[in-house]
Amino acid sequence: MKKKVYKAHILYTKERNRFEVLENGYVAVDADGRVSEVASDLKSLDCGDWEVTDFVDCLLIPAMNDLHVHAPQYRNQGIAMDLELLPWLQNYTFPEEMKYADLAYAERMYRRFVHDLWRFGTMRACVFATIHTDSTRLLMRIFQEAGMGALVGKVAMDRNCPEGLSEPVGEMVLGYEDLIAEFNNPDALVRPIITPRFVPSCTPETLRACGELAAKYQLPVQSHLSENKDEVALVRTLENTWYGDAYNRYGLFGQTPTVMAHCVFTEGEELELMRRNRVVVAHCPTSNLNVASGMAPVRKFLDNGLRVGLGSDISGGHDLSIFRMMVYAIQVSKMYYQQNHDRSFLTLSEAFWMATKSAGSFFGRVGSFEPGYEFDALIIDDSDLNHDNYSLLERLERYIYLGDDRQIKHRFCRGKEIFGQ
Amino acid sequence: MKKKVYKAHILYTKERNRFEVLENGYVAVDADGRVSEVASDLKSLDCGDWEVTDFVDCLLIPAMNDLHVHAPQYRNQGIAMDLELLPWLQNYTFPEEMKYADLAYAERMYRRFVHDLWRFGTMRACVFATIHTDSTRLLMRIFQEAGMGALVGKVAMDRNCPEGLSEPVGEMVLGYEDLIAEFNNPDALVRPIITPRFVPSCTPETLRACGELAAKYQLPVQSHLSENKDEVALVRTLENTWYGDAYNRYGLFGQTPTVMAHCVFTEGEELELMRRNRVVVAHCPTSNLNVASGMAPVRKFLDNGLRVGLGSDISGGHDLSIFRMMVYAIQVSKMYYQQNHDRSFLTLSEAFWMATKSAGSFFGRVGSFEPGYEFDALIIDDSDLNHDNYSLLERLERYIYLGDDRQIKHRFCRGKEIFGQ
Repeated sequence: MKKKVYKAHILYTKERNRFEVLENGYVAVDADGRVSEVASDLKSLDCGDWEVTDFVDCLLIPAMNDLHVHAPQYRNQGIAMDLELLPWLQNYTFPEEMKYADLAYAERMYRRFVHDLWRFGTMRACVFATIHTDSTRLLMRIFQEAGMGALVGKVAMDRNCPEGLSEPVGEMVLGYEDLIAEFNNPDALVRPIITPRFVPSCTPETLRACGELAAKYQLPVQSHLSENKDEVALVRTLENTWYGDAYNRYGLFGQTPTVMAHCVFTEGEELELMRRNRVVVAHCPTSNLNVASGMAPVRKFLDNGLRVGLGSDISGGHDLSIFRMMVYAIQVSKMYYQQNHDRSFLTLSEAFWMATKSAGSFFGRVGSFEPGYEFDALIIDDSDLNHDNYSLLERLERYIYLGDDRQIKHRFCRGKEIFGQ
Repeated sequence: MKKKVYKAHILYTKERNRFEVLENGYVAVDADGRVSEVASDLKSLDCGDWEVTDFVDCLLIPAMNDLHVHAPQYRNQGIAMDLELLPWLQNYTFPEEMKYADLAYAERMYRRFVHDLWRFGTMRACVFATIHTDSTRLLMRIFQEAGMGALVGKVAMDRNCPEGLSEPVGEMVLGYEDLIAEFNNPDALVRPIITPRFVPSCTPETLRACGELAAKYQLPVQSHLSENKDEVALVRTLENTWYGDAYNRYGLFGQTPTVMAHCVFTEGEELELMRRNRVVVAHCPTSNLNVASGMAPVRKFLDNGLRVGLGSDISGGHDLSIFRMMVYAIQVSKMYYQQNHDRSFLTLSEAFWMATKSAGSFFGRVGSFEPGYEFDALIIDDSDLNHDNYSLLERLERYIYLGDDRQIKHRFCRGKEIFGQ
């Protein structure tokens, strides 16, 4: 790959409290796809043989990262929102996931799903697949073909679920080892992630086997945590301890890099253990509204030093756009603090930082334009939204609040331009 | 106008608890732009000389109604969302509204604003303009040209605001009479609406004059009510009574048709008086989140027989799409009931009914396809969202949750197709 320089209005967040803004700035990308430098003028760049591309008057920002999304619920995106959690799982989610035993169906849906992630500018994602090893492999290959980054989890589950979605622990482990054999290159964009669905649907044997797989192959872990009150109570009944500890005792809570979705009711010792074990929160504000779970205390997480990123959680969430998740994260934080008589809500830079640098850290050096970061980036042509004399930060805010896939003109992952398939 | 029949999948709500669904149905529209019949087959239509248009496999639904939107805040849509209410008004809203003394600026912005309403399928709106009579007249003419329905309010305000936005009561009345002379045809699509900004920015003299104008010319009234706690307390200090009563004693609370935006903290005698006086609630869920006001108890309003519609409230709200308002209304109701330990949230049919038939009733017989209703309608081509075997109701739900202006192929207001300008 030739060395490259991109010129545009560059906006990103090194720290959560402020944007770095370079009007007509330059970012230099090395042959290995990593940022070597960001500069306000070409002369100050330490460059030899560069190819300069000028994205005239466009915004250049880090690409989006989705820390929690269920690929096989893609078909159910935006339907059955009037249902409560239980009938929704029984009548929509589980029957849909069973269809992924059929590779042809999986291929049709997974290709659309990956295309839509691409469309909305998400270049890295933590993805739940299903129990089916073959369709999970297919999904991973589709991500590879696309050139996008993904941690993809074959789902482990063997209790409190329909028979067609229950897999005995031995088969589960074999399936994982099969996938690990093909994909476990630590430098690869697409890798497996150990994925017990959540405590209520995994026997202790399956949870133990998951922890052992994570340790043996040094693989990351993802699951759900403290999403709603009934679930938290159920876990206490099943495992006789608090939710985070139930994962922790099986080696699934930060022993390898771990991301937990929701954490709406995380507090006290659970919060403290997450901080200590560097467990990442995948905050899914849209899903938490749609499923009537509650409002996660994200400001408290940040103030306590927790790592937090954003997740679309399709199809509890209905929107794949991580830009839209930023808006919802800010809105939910405003409502949380309105209800709790505290005025400190999330700011735009904090939401942006969560979606980029904070979430990106789960994939490596991703989500910023500091030297050494992988160049995951979007080129936004907001001319249709930029009809008056807006500042660059106002243009970014307007894009986040009002824009959609139409304004995203180019997408880069690890230095390579990614085209839709 | 020739009599017309449109064929498509027809969905609408006569009652709030269920959709009427006609697969490949027909709606017949009289020469005066009113629905004469809806039927499942052509034979059962009582028709003589009809022209049939077949919108093959499209959805045909009532057009959207926006019960609360500030046209002169259009420029500020989607910016300054990190600010609290007071600095936001001082630094963004008021300075922007002052610019509408300049007709050239007003024309540029108002044309874009009306075009965007059109784009998102909103065919009727209750609109706040500014104190400026000339640019308010211009806005009304732009709506007339477009063929869309609007109740447009020259804003009355003369205290607690910058000098450039304060208008003495005598001039305010003259300005209104000027507009009324040009526009007050009760059958017209575009009409004036008496618009005291809200109690804190109107002296008793201005409120009294507004009430007298409404009574004298039998004009509708719009304003803000009980949006946030500090405001409610301030009104009590200023008028020595509760908020709704402050309007009521000046004849601005249902003496003529009245719509009040927000009502987040409306309860008790205020709620009861609204019910008795048939005052309509313009529920603005997005704005209430963005401005951290709170969550309006919409289910309680409906159960108490209040009339409720939806408002985008640009630029407290950031999104002009009333479809998006339906999603937010449902989400906020879920959060309200999650917080208040009551499981009864708004359903999709209720949100749809609020945006169509309930809100539409403020404009006449608008928002349904029952015989005699004005034919305000949208043709939705959702083929890009309809990639699997969805039911018609699932298709509508997916469009509401996932769609945008791209899927709206045709727009009708009072029987006439409306083209963007």
